[in-house]
Amino acid sequence: MRTRIGIIGAGPAGLLLAWLLQRRGIESVVLERRSREHCERRVRAGVLEQGTVDTLAEAGLGERLAAEGHVHHGIELRFGGAGHRIPFEELVPGRAITVYGQQEVVKDLIKANLDAGVDIRFEVEDVAIEDFEDRPRLTFGGERLDCDFIAGCDGFHGIARAAVPQDRVRIFEKAYPFAWLGVLADVRPSASELVYSASERGFSLHSMRSDTVSRFYLQVPPETKAEDWTHEAIWAELKARHETVPGFTLDTDGPITAVDVAVMRSFVAEPMRFGRLFLAGDAAHIVPPTGAKGLNLAVADIRVLARALGEYYASGSEDLLDRYTEICLHRVWRAQHFSWWMTNLLHAFADADAYDRRLQRSNLEYVVRSRAQATALAENYVGLPYSTDETG
Amino acid sequence: MRTRIGIIGAGPAGLLLAWLLQRRGIESVVLERRSREHCERRVRAGVLEQGTVDTLAEAGLGERLAAEGHVHHGIELRFGGAGHRIPFEELVPGRAITVYGQQEVVKDLIKANLDAGVDIRFEVEDVAIEDFEDRPRLTFGGERLDCDFIAGCDGFHGIARAAVPQDRVRIFEKAYPFAWLGVLADVRPSASELVYSASERGFSLHSMRSDTVSRFYLQVPPETKAEDWTHEAIWAELKARHETVPGFTLDTDGPITAVDVAVMRSFVAEPMRFGRLFLAGDAAHIVPPTGAKGLNLAVADIRVLARALGEYYASGSEDLLDRYTEICLHRVWRAQHFSWWMTNLLHAFADADAYDRRLQRSNLEYVVRSRAQATALAENYVGLPYSTDETG
Repeated sequence: MRTRIGIIGAGPAGLLLAWLLQRRGIESVVLERRSREHCERRVRAGVLEQGTVDTLAEAGLGERLAAEGHVHHGIELRFGGAGHRIPFEELVPGRAITVYGQQEVVKDLIKANLDAGVDIRFEVEDVAIEDFEDRPRLTFGGERLDCDFIAGCDGFHGIARAAVPQDRVRIFEKAYPFAWLGVLADVRPSASELVYSASERGFSLHSMRSDTVSRFYLQVPPETKAEDWTHEAIWAELKARHETVPGFTLDTDGPITAVDVAVMRSFVAEPMRFGRLFLAGDAAHIVPPTGAKGLNLAVADIRVLARALGEYYASGSEDLLDRYTEICLHRVWRAQHFSWWMTNLLHAFADADAYDRRLQRSNLEYVVRSRAQATALAENYVGLPYSTDETG
Repeated sequence: MRTRIGIIGAGPAGLLLAWLLQRRGIESVVLERRSREHCERRVRAGVLEQGTVDTLAEAGLGERLAAEGHVHHGIELRFGGAGHRIPFEELVPGRAITVYGQQEVVKDLIKANLDAGVDIRFEVEDVAIEDFEDRPRLTFGGERLDCDFIAGCDGFHGIARAAVPQDRVRIFEKAYPFAWLGVLADVRPSASELVYSASERGFSLHSMRSDTVSRFYLQVPPETKAEDWTHEAIWAELKARHETVPGFTLDTDGPITAVDVAVMRSFVAEPMRFGRLFLAGDAAHIVPPTGAKGLNLAVADIRVLARALGEYYASGSEDLLDRYTEICLHRVWRAQHFSWWMTNLLHAFADADAYDRRLQRSNLEYVVRSRAQATALAENYVGLPYSTDETG
């Protein structure tokens, strides 16, 4: 079997790549270890940057997103007994975020790809990469797929990055002394915008997926397991961390439907290209979720990769392919810094001394009082505009 | 002997307080351990914020400052083989810094005070504080000075803070794994504005005192002594850290006239008032010099203290005296955060891993590319406007 681009992974990165390629008339095959149902139900990120929304809309994927996504023009930072709104409409006019679950993006992408005849293979076993330098091929379940290029879009724990000899990858990473307990509940959101609450008990995020589904996160010790927390304990802790301003009551009148634990990690693998293998999204870099950048970085990578492959097949030019790493890493490191900064701004660090805690508070107060610093937060949060290299 | 305010220390803080008090008709006595000549020759900071310049001008001390000070409308951040100007005139219109040596401020203040008949005692020995709660008095060289209030303006190593029982002071502090080697040279400045150079060899600052005198700083190991460095080695290292952009040559054609080592430390003592004893300036807080905030914070403290004492003697109200700590600490912690941020942005940290170094570079690139983040730097650097509590 032969195709032009062999794509490993049917997450947002792999599916968007397949979609953008077929729009350029470039054939690909997507190999996914899990079932379609599993991919469509995986609860992940839910905040789309302006550029991500624009990218999806330009690619003809914006219809349900526009109908069901919720556009937010601000977030709240809550600390010291008060809430402070970061008003995007004032600070970064014309740019906003859209709350739309990652699994909804995945559903849209799977449907669009399958409708267009893209070959997505779910539940394939033992995917392996061979000879990514010269004659790249993928093997799986006894079959063999010869390709021009391979796109490793299979996440942090995938096989793509692992297929590269260790001495060819430089790893940059940072661990955090806490994790996030993610909670999905059939409860009306208690606020109309996201609330980032830096309480002395630890950080908590109040988010939402729809008018009837809330999504919460609690900073927890890193070794926490989902089953460590009873639903009663989750509600009590969410109330304690969020009901810190006068008049705010957290609606808890509904069932918790899912609890998960997300590790907090900063990670970058450099380069992102090895011969005819390209890494994209979580396969190449991870950010702590505080800045809501993971999905958006994956979309930015794919935007560049699809264009580079398009240029290669249209004109034979390898210029953009050669610059793929350099172009992507610029945004990746900006997001790494922003995500680290947001994480440090908002979390309770067990090893922080009294000086560190005063510094953190001074920084929080500055962010909400200085238009300049609030704008810096806002422009990163809604996503910095694409560079000309990214836009094409 | 009796006075209203007993002031310990004839640095900028103590001298400015004495001056502002005499303008309000409030008598004080300044006690200083060193000679007048020593005080006037002590090379320290040289960057005055807009608010500091305004404060001195409003107090009738602006004449020589206006004639001899150099107003700068930007600074340069140099890294990665390029220089990037932070243009204050665009980012914070109407606000600038003035380069004018601290010892010049001290000379102006000593002269003004002595001309106005303020009692400054130089070279007094064994100054001690007694009963700062009820009937405060200072003893020195066998004499006794009864006062209404005592102002401890005697710096980080002074006796004022040390006179307070340890259990009444909360200390917040942070040490840095490097020091600054300060170099004064009779050399024409090689740049018209300050150059903050983040080189891989370590941080270096190119500053100036006049058209013929340059002031340099080199990041050095913390245990460095001034005599460890020959003048040849100093010039070679300054050239290596600054001549990193095309076309820039460091002028080294003149003698080095002074070399000193400054410890890098962040420190805050809370509260700043103990009964009838008030701490101001370095006696209460220290910042690393990277943000040029030390002298300016001292001036801001004194502004508040002079007004508070003025209100007390005018109306009997202790309201501002009671709020002295709270009013000052707001600016102090903002400056603590900014100074820490600038220090982290620009220095080479021996214990930084590869991730930290990439993060630092991403932050530097962001500062010079984002108008919002550059404005945040600029507004802190020129000094945030005084609050209504500080202005009166």
